[in-house]
Amino acid sequence: MGAHLKTIFSGLQQEDLDGLLISLPSNVTYLTVYPSRDSYLLISKKECVYFTDSRYLEEARSYLAKNITLKEINGSVFKLIAENCLRIGLKRVGFEERHLPFAEYKKIKEELQGKAKLMPTHGLIEQLRQIKAPEEIEKIKKAIHITAQALEYIQDYLAPGRKEIEVVGELERFIRFHGASNSAFDIIVASGPNSSFPHHIPGTRKLQNNEPVLIDIGIDYQDYKSDLTRVFFLGKISSLVRTVYDIILEAQDRAIKGVRPAVQIKKIDALARQFITRKGYGKFFGHSLGHGVGLDVHEEPPISPYNQNTLKPGMLFTIEPAIYLPGKFGIRTEDMVLVTQKGCVNLSGPVNK
Amino acid sequence: MGAHLKTIFSGLQQEDLDGLLISLPSNVTYLTVYPSRDSYLLISKKECVYFTDSRYLEEARSYLAKNITLKEINGSVFKLIAENCLRIGLKRVGFEERHLPFAEYKKIKEELQGKAKLMPTHGLIEQLRQIKAPEEIEKIKKAIHITAQALEYIQDYLAPGRKEIEVVGELERFIRFHGASNSAFDIIVASGPNSSFPHHIPGTRKLQNNEPVLIDIGIDYQDYKSDLTRVFFLGKISSLVRTVYDIILEAQDRAIKGVRPAVQIKKIDALARQFITRKGYGKFFGHSLGHGVGLDVHEEPPISPYNQNTLKPGMLFTIEPAIYLPGKFGIRTEDMVLVTQKGCVNLSGPVNK
Repeated sequence: MGAHLKTIFSGLQQEDLDGLLISLPSNVTYLTVYPSRDSYLLISKKECVYFTDSRYLEEARSYLAKNITLKEINGSVFKLIAENCLRIGLKRVGFEERHLPFAEYKKIKEELQGKAKLMPTHGLIEQLRQIKAPEEIEKIKKAIHITAQALEYIQDYLAPGRKEIEVVGELERFIRFHGASNSAFDIIVASGPNSSFPHHIPGTRKLQNNEPVLIDIGIDYQDYKSDLTRVFFLGKISSLVRTVYDIILEAQDRAIKGVRPAVQIKKIDALARQFITRKGYGKFFGHSLGHGVGLDVHEEPPISPYNQNTLKPGMLFTIEPAIYLPGKFGIRTEDMVLVTQKGCVNLSGPVNK
Repeated sequence: MGAHLKTIFSGLQQEDLDGLLISLPSNVTYLTVYPSRDSYLLISKKECVYFTDSRYLEEARSYLAKNITLKEINGSVFKLIAENCLRIGLKRVGFEERHLPFAEYKKIKEELQGKAKLMPTHGLIEQLRQIKAPEEIEKIKKAIHITAQALEYIQDYLAPGRKEIEVVGELERFIRFHGASNSAFDIIVASGPNSSFPHHIPGTRKLQNNEPVLIDIGIDYQDYKSDLTRVFFLGKISSLVRTVYDIILEAQDRAIKGVRPAVQIKKIDALARQFITRKGYGKFFGHSLGHGVGLDVHEEPPISPYNQNTLKPGMLFTIEPAIYLPGKFGIRTEDMVLVTQKGCVNLSGPVNK
């Protein structure tokens, strides 16, 4: 936690805060390097306090750094948080406005009884998390490796007659036999026309010959996530599918070639989107080009037409152009890239493209 | 949606509200009978509006009731929600204070520009959801059935040398081949001393002879969840494990026998807890006795020492007494019961006890 505290404290100082309550689990995990669930972290120059309940108490005791005070939630966590703010002598405590429900804000505020102020903050920790440290990159690479293995494996399993949900089952099993602790999100297997729904829920539809099968899969390796999409083809590929697939591959390639430090993020989105639009499919690509991946599968930075920020070395995100033709099919291919000092590397490699 | 609207409107009227913004996905799903993800629902006597983005638009269009207006999120959802509140002419709009982040509340409030008020509400829909309708109970029974099949199946798979995470992988695969669309939560497989952590994250530890293996598993069947826990034993059972296991079985039995309409919920918790305490293990049972299960795996009512409410027919919840002996082992057994007109039924049956 030490390395980040200095940056956080200077961020807090700028907003005239003397403490910060962290409620987003992945932010707590990032700072404590311990997987947080249903827990809160209060940080200040004087003391850092971790709030958890009896389910996690024993585990937390053995894994948390010794300079973090551990408090058991036994009754109202909001009262407990407020009590500790006052005990430490904090006066202006920041909270994560995007990750604290209104009711929790209200309760903590009430419990502070006007003796300390609760102030909204925005993305303080998320900003730090955008730039991955070498040990984080190693874990993400491992997550990608397991995911790529799963995509290699499933290729031979795909056959007419298999149900989408059975393919999901095979993948869910495979990843756990190869080092994943979990999937990172609900794996998508979308066959034929189902692939035109960007977030299709896999069902009992059977794979058929002469249609695409879209698989979007990510895993969890030591709390770090991966996120890859590939389209497989059973039987013959129609010329329309081929055309759309080639456009997607080229759009992705153009975007990845543009990734390097100091480039505006919205320009990366534009590199793919403008190409797809020129080919006449712009209105069939409704979402952003990509998103950061780390402890959360969706995190900063969004690779969207609205992101005015510039790329920095250590940023790690997906590039996933797509074309969805309602009632027909959808094609999306998704890789993960890391911004380096001079350009970028495609961490997912050439698997199954 | 029709059946519930009348009750909701009378609830709103009591709080002098003319609209309600629903943001908890399972609440939106409950009212629309369509699996909601990243979507919002605004309900009022004049009009109901569903807000979703391009990823779900096509799907929502085909599944939503025709009397629900569909609005595409394309930019700020908060602005869109506010615009629609004003378009419909709402003046006092309730929101779910436990499920709306502070930042979202703030943004919608700003966009309303003082022309309508945003008022916190609490559990309006959750209260309705406590009482299950026959078609909900059927789905939950089906979810339980698949879960019980998985527990039967895995019994023969458990053997010294298998890793915890591999057992999870087998279960994740099995349920999808038998009708589940997903697991309801991260399946727990906790072997030997790991079972003393109530929410152990399964890892690479290998099962060993002469130790308990605790499995906590739930699935998703047509959006409805199940949640069961069983302890299996490899090799010989030590007399301490046997003693603790017998206490848990009896505690559970005592609690279930007490379940009938009009009984205070905290008394059900007490039936199990007092027995465990009398046997000398009270301090090793740190959590509540149970929780409601439905569209969410944890929902109303909590079966806790603090719940003053009384049981009603149609309530459906877990009974899961536990004893966790740090560094040694933990025993928990979890069934799902339904309150009937005169008593209750144990929906999970005698599987693997």
